[in-house]
Amino acid sequence: MGLVVQKYGGSSVADAEGIKRVAKRIVDAKKNGHQVVVVVSAMGDTTDELIDLAGQVSPIPAGREFDMLLTAGERISMALLAMAIKNLGHEAQSFTGSQAGVITDSVHNKARIIDVTPGRIRTALDEGNIAIVAGFQGVSQDKKDITTLGRGGSDTTAVALAAALDAEVCEIYTDVDGVFTADPRVVPKARKIDRISFEDMLELASSGSKVLLHRCVEYARRYNIPIHVRSSFSGLQGTWVSNEQGDRKVEQAIISGVAHDTSEAKITVVGVPDKPGEAATIFRAIANNEINIDMVVQNVSAASTGLTDISFTLPKAEGRKAIDALEKTKSTIGFESLRYDDQIAKISLVGAGMKTNPGVTAGFFEALSDAGVNIELISTSEIRISVVTRADEVKEAVRAVHSAFGLDSDSDEAVVYGGTGR
Amino acid sequence: MGLVVQKYGGSSVADAEGIKRVAKRIVDAKKNGHQVVVVVSAMGDTTDELIDLAGQVSPIPAGREFDMLLTAGERISMALLAMAIKNLGHEAQSFTGSQAGVITDSVHNKARIIDVTPGRIRTALDEGNIAIVAGFQGVSQDKKDITTLGRGGSDTTAVALAAALDAEVCEIYTDVDGVFTADPRVVPKARKIDRISFEDMLELASSGSKVLLHRCVEYARRYNIPIHVRSSFSGLQGTWVSNEQGDRKVEQAIISGVAHDTSEAKITVVGVPDKPGEAATIFRAIANNEINIDMVVQNVSAASTGLTDISFTLPKAEGRKAIDALEKTKSTIGFESLRYDDQIAKISLVGAGMKTNPGVTAGFFEALSDAGVNIELISTSEIRISVVTRADEVKEAVRAVHSAFGLDSDSDEAVVYGGTGR
Repeated sequence: MGLVVQKYGGSSVADAEGIKRVAKRIVDAKKNGHQVVVVVSAMGDTTDELIDLAGQVSPIPAGREFDMLLTAGERISMALLAMAIKNLGHEAQSFTGSQAGVITDSVHNKARIIDVTPGRIRTALDEGNIAIVAGFQGVSQDKKDITTLGRGGSDTTAVALAAALDAEVCEIYTDVDGVFTADPRVVPKARKIDRISFEDMLELASSGSKVLLHRCVEYARRYNIPIHVRSSFSGLQGTWVSNEQGDRKVEQAIISGVAHDTSEAKITVVGVPDKPGEAATIFRAIANNEINIDMVVQNVSAASTGLTDISFTLPKAEGRKAIDALEKTKSTIGFESLRYDDQIAKISLVGAGMKTNPGVTAGFFEALSDAGVNIELISTSEIRISVVTRADEVKEAVRAVHSAFGLDSDSDEAVVYGGTGR
Repeated sequence: MGLVVQKYGGSSVADAEGIKRVAKRIVDAKKNGHQVVVVVSAMGDTTDELIDLAGQVSPIPAGREFDMLLTAGERISMALLAMAIKNLGHEAQSFTGSQAGVITDSVHNKARIIDVTPGRIRTALDEGNIAIVAGFQGVSQDKKDITTLGRGGSDTTAVALAAALDAEVCEIYTDVDGVFTADPRVVPKARKIDRISFEDMLELASSGSKVLLHRCVEYARRYNIPIHVRSSFSGLQGTWVSNEQGDRKVEQAIISGVAHDTSEAKITVVGVPDKPGEAATIFRAIANNEINIDMVVQNVSAASTGLTDISFTLPKAEGRKAIDALEKTKSTIGFESLRYDDQIAKISLVGAGMKTNPGVTAGFFEALSDAGVNIELISTSEIRISVVTRADEVKEAVRAVHSAFGLDSDSDEAVVYGGTGR
């Protein structure tokens, strides 16, 4: 039996009862002969409460101090979890990100992991301890200041530790049973996925699936660490994310799932002269303001005018900043106008082998058409098709696509497309 | 203008408003040209809430993890305070006990400071920052584990940092105006003391005064760091504790104040054979159980029986343990019985020059007698007389003594005893 890294999110350790339940599960893994490293998030709403407090003392909390503040949350949960484990008769020690050797850059509030040097964790394990590590935090390489890893940081901590410790598996415990073929709140017939490749999981994550974040999956893929996403409330098998392709037959498309995302807005730059360098100027203006964009679509220009429209999607929170940045470049670029639309939804179909299989794209569009959903933008990748629709049509659209591709839980099996071309 | 260390307790930073008020006061000190180091406790009831959480997951919280848990409290308050200061336009950085170089032994929950190496604090100050340091915590020298200093630990942190940084003064901010001649809740006419020596303050602290703890005053005396105890709610001068004797005339007794303590119980070992080694056996049994005792009184034995009684006081919380320990030695020692009494109070009169001045002891006993208060035990030191009385007589007794020694705020001046002898 090898080393297992388990990660528990805030909802799993929301109160003393939750902590005791999690402690029991950890001890079970230890009893099964594993060395166990546990990464834990802050309890329930702790982080939100701390953010609220910060807002009360300062409208613009400083990065360094904000990180110092937020990291108190994991300190509380990890110490309590270690106590609860010791109370069950097993040895446990808790470690801050710094003590666990999580070395980051100095970008406060969204630091990136540079290195993991888990010497103290290794020693604690060798001495028979269960090691509890604070998720979401590290220490900066140059200044030795406390840093936080930003959104989804605890999952990344877990995968990074699993890689550094050469773990058998990184188990991500959450309040759902695993990764589903669609959001079960939208599609009641959504099915739990048993196995999914890193690549498909990456596409689902970047298309709106919230179970695992892109960053954590990317890290796991790079170091080839299998992730097992499962519920902390049941003993059921969840979803394995790995570089295995499951039982997919070569050259056949397997649809992994349907993701949707209503957190984005769409900006259309209308009437852009269709000549070299115009698009570059537009996206340089966006990039200079550190705005991350998602889909970008440009259609052929109308021959009569020599003008084209460029549309892109971006997080709603960045909308105002992007519009301001573009307005300033209006005279340079010479576009006609800007349109801003935050009533959109993105629906994505993800699956391996899609590009080399016919009918997937057609089937996707037909399903939307049959449901009366209009498509506003289309974007594709090797293993994903995404469309933008009206926000109020998103649920209907997701259900229609989910059903059309045989993903519903009452279907006999997923639709498999054979052959070539799309 | 030199370096000032300011310490703010939990009641001063109980909420966002308190933190902002404290931030303003800190910035004022900085504007006055001082280098400022601030030691801060956890907000309001945070520590109690964390202790309560620990109790919910484990009946006997482990030392190491308990310290990890509790230190989250200062992490929150110090980060918020730094943010609030930055919001006022001044630079501030917060530091954990470990980052501030507070090196301790490995006794979790009540570690002792071994060394202070404030290199990062010095650098932060030199760069123009206000340095905010977490009180109550350090890092163990051997294992590099987080430790806490126990009760009153933040005051000790402040004095230790003041000593290591060679500060002009260590300001202890609290919710009262300073040290009083008696507890103002018991004696409404109690007066604020302007200046008091380290020695008198030590005696007051060990006699029940709660404003400063013995340990912190002892540290300040050893390194000769003046302490200024003052209110965080007003700009008034508080009480200066230093090695100066104030305006006391040599060879005259100045009464500093009357302290009382109702946290102790009394144990009497009845009928102890009056021969060498009996007392040693009794107190070795107590010491082996790590019980701290306070007053010890043995009277001459009755000639007829050759038996004597030995009484001592100790914290009520240790009473059960002490009785158990003594019962086990009953056959060895051969005493008759044990009496346990937790309805006692200790009243102490503290003042320099007492021993060499007549009438102080007599005046003390007369005041108690006039108030109808019976004395059960008496114990004296160089600068203190303590008596044990019934608990329900304590308020009356304190007021009577306070008044008899001219300490009441409507008295013209404190009574001064001249001459020699007592």
